[in-house]
Amino acid sequence: MGNDRLTQIVSLCRRRGFVFGGSEIYGGLSSIWDYGPLGAKIKKRIKDIWWDTYVDKREDILGLDSAIIMNREVFVASGHLEGFADYLVDCPQCKKRIRIDKIEKVSENNYRCAECGSLINILESKPKRFNLMLKTNISASEDSPQEAYLRPETAQGIFTNFLNVLNTTHKKLPFGIAQIGKAFRNEVTTGSFIFRMKEFEQMEIEYFVKPKDADRYFDYWVNERYNFYIERIGLKKENLRLREHSKEELAHYAKACIDIEYRFPFSSRKEDSDGEWSELEGIANRGDFDLTQHSRVSKKDLTYFDDEDNTRYIPFVIEPSAGVDRTFFAVICDAYDEEEVKGRKRVVLKLKPTLAPYTLAIFPLLKNNYTIVELAKKIFYDIKNKMPTIYDDTAAIGKLYRRQDEIGTPFCITVDVESLSDGKVTIRERDSMSQERISIYEIEKFVKEKVKD
Amino acid sequence: MGNDRLTQIVSLCRRRGFVFGGSEIYGGLSSIWDYGPLGAKIKKRIKDIWWDTYVDKREDILGLDSAIIMNREVFVASGHLEGFADYLVDCPQCKKRIRIDKIEKVSENNYRCAECGSLINILESKPKRFNLMLKTNISASEDSPQEAYLRPETAQGIFTNFLNVLNTTHKKLPFGIAQIGKAFRNEVTTGSFIFRMKEFEQMEIEYFVKPKDADRYFDYWVNERYNFYIERIGLKKENLRLREHSKEELAHYAKACIDIEYRFPFSSRKEDSDGEWSELEGIANRGDFDLTQHSRVSKKDLTYFDDEDNTRYIPFVIEPSAGVDRTFFAVICDAYDEEEVKGRKRVVLKLKPTLAPYTLAIFPLLKNNYTIVELAKKIFYDIKNKMPTIYDDTAAIGKLYRRQDEIGTPFCITVDVESLSDGKVTIRERDSMSQERISIYEIEKFVKEKVKD
Repeated sequence: MGNDRLTQIVSLCRRRGFVFGGSEIYGGLSSIWDYGPLGAKIKKRIKDIWWDTYVDKREDILGLDSAIIMNREVFVASGHLEGFADYLVDCPQCKKRIRIDKIEKVSENNYRCAECGSLINILESKPKRFNLMLKTNISASEDSPQEAYLRPETAQGIFTNFLNVLNTTHKKLPFGIAQIGKAFRNEVTTGSFIFRMKEFEQMEIEYFVKPKDADRYFDYWVNERYNFYIERIGLKKENLRLREHSKEELAHYAKACIDIEYRFPFSSRKEDSDGEWSELEGIANRGDFDLTQHSRVSKKDLTYFDDEDNTRYIPFVIEPSAGVDRTFFAVICDAYDEEEVKGRKRVVLKLKPTLAPYTLAIFPLLKNNYTIVELAKKIFYDIKNKMPTIYDDTAAIGKLYRRQDEIGTPFCITVDVESLSDGKVTIRERDSMSQERISIYEIEKFVKEKVKD
Repeated sequence: MGNDRLTQIVSLCRRRGFVFGGSEIYGGLSSIWDYGPLGAKIKKRIKDIWWDTYVDKREDILGLDSAIIMNREVFVASGHLEGFADYLVDCPQCKKRIRIDKIEKVSENNYRCAECGSLINILESKPKRFNLMLKTNISASEDSPQEAYLRPETAQGIFTNFLNVLNTTHKKLPFGIAQIGKAFRNEVTTGSFIFRMKEFEQMEIEYFVKPKDADRYFDYWVNERYNFYIERIGLKKENLRLREHSKEELAHYAKACIDIEYRFPFSSRKEDSDGEWSELEGIANRGDFDLTQHSRVSKKDLTYFDDEDNTRYIPFVIEPSAGVDRTFFAVICDAYDEEEVKGRKRVVLKLKPTLAPYTLAIFPLLKNNYTIVELAKKIFYDIKNKMPTIYDDTAAIGKLYRRQDEIGTPFCITVDVESLSDGKVTIRERDSMSQERISIYEIEKFVKEKVKD
């Protein structure tokens, strides 16, 4: 069932132009995806809502837009060059290359291959360390390469700019720096559609606090971000849960971490897959690890002078780190519905209206009736500057409805013969499929009242 | 003068947190820059205005968000692997490495070093070919690398998705596909602040047309984009000009190209610099070059079936290709002004109000008067959800005005003792510095009327 649903969702994404394979006409690239016209619209909405909520509407958080390519030393300090690696082993039976941390440990040095089930002894098979960062050469000369890295998280651009931001804005604790941008990880485990990508986009906040306040703000951010997914993104509460990392599971930089997990329609956990409940966002208390490390390696003083306590220290940081692509994926999964209507399957994306690619669709009931088409187009041109609207007259009305249901358009308007005399149109609501007649002049007000943040 | 002005602008950008050096605490990376809090806001505004104008408001243009990392074959087809290279030579005298196309040719095989003035004979010094693309390895195994490239232009993601978009949207010619995103070029010539960067952001449209309509749409887009800079971005007409590429100058893919140039405050052209009039955007008629090439190399049929003419062909494409960073840079240069006010220098950024990081600033006249501060904060909290607003009480009023002038805030509001009794505040306009008293309840209306698209 889980996989059936996933198959249907992937098929819809492909068929309607939400997501395509990256470099697809050349056979694609593993775990690299492109967003098509409708996907690009939803993805932008998600990012805009996040940015508006945290950067534009809050005076305690500042935006940043730092570069993807960073100096090698950044990752010496962050620990990524040393520690950001997977251990891979080749199964001696089926020859498949597998991540050791993703398969079942059966005894001290023995693991079970997720592919063929045979035992892998790691003393014999010797796992290889594989760094997950993508490297490039930015030297202007091929004889003397200068290696640089594509960031594996946007966070490091925030830490390396901490002093710049502090010096130019004179903010006092607590304050945050927020950033949206691409990050890159050479993931070995792939599959699960866009869940784990080599190129992905993050929305990260580093929220700097007094060390004594760290636990309190950690709780605040877990709560704030959990509610964001429900209230602003429209995910169903029953598909979200919090999961605290155990001590053994914590990343090297973290004092505490809670994942917000979403119930994705994946089959049960196995190598090359992800469990049903999978990470949507991690909220970590990174303590003073990052600034301390950057201070040590860069030899720059990254302390904060606290004029209330008259002391100088390195702040603690709480990091809510969200994935744009995973949020997008959760949005589609959460909204995807199949219903039986009059003996036929109706596929409908019950998107929160503020995330839908189009808020409104306008159709003429009869595409060969010039007067009706003219009125429908007039309504379209009047309203399209006020809300995202699409016009379609390339099929019969039933098919036009189904097309809009599939892409989550909350309202459809049909212009018919009567519209020409009574100035009214039929407005149909996506989820209930209820229809009512309203005046052409009321369309904007009618829709805007129902489409709230 | 030119350079003085540039120095002042760079200094402002640094001092107020518009732009910082990339990986700066580690000594930076050549031609890689980060946008600080105010820069990130302006940059996002520019992108949002472009996306709104071309993707959200036009039914003939579709958005796309394709990956940065692309398959090697993409660039075999596009010609970038073969042709996207600079020829570099080391000056035998001063040893500087120089781009041959950027220095003066004095006779058949002799060029003049822009650094030391000595002659460079290219038969003796033998220029080296240097490809401008950044390469990385996305293989999950270090023994068998899979090379992939960071795209040098977002355009290729559009061409490789042409068929996907056509098949999922059933658009008819003419239609466009638009994309905003990062691109990477390992530029040898650097300098001129953020004008030429190794990591930069583009806003590109590929507008597909019937071959016979290509010239007409080329003219249309030159005109449309030129007006965009004036009307939507607010650049001064006298700082913009059109320059047609000569036949010799045309890129290998182009049938025609016109640059929209901006008068940047650079000193006269020399190596490591850019001329006063420099490219802001190029509009090219790329003919059917790209789709033909991708069709040939990928062996996919990228033709379009024209049901009006009942023929099948590869469309021509008009490409308006804009740089986000260059637009940002032009916006700052255009807005930067120094005035003498009462014997003191006033630095003011006369930004188009829709681009300013904050539309409004709220100050209490007396920061130690609790009642005034309370009212000022109340006004701030009421209005900050309606327009980008900043509150500041950390200096005397004259200094607060100067701070906002420097970052281009169009309106400042001061709350004083009288405000407590008459419910009025002083509103000051940035450019004219004129002040008037208005009711607290009129603030939103007053400002919104003056801040139009």
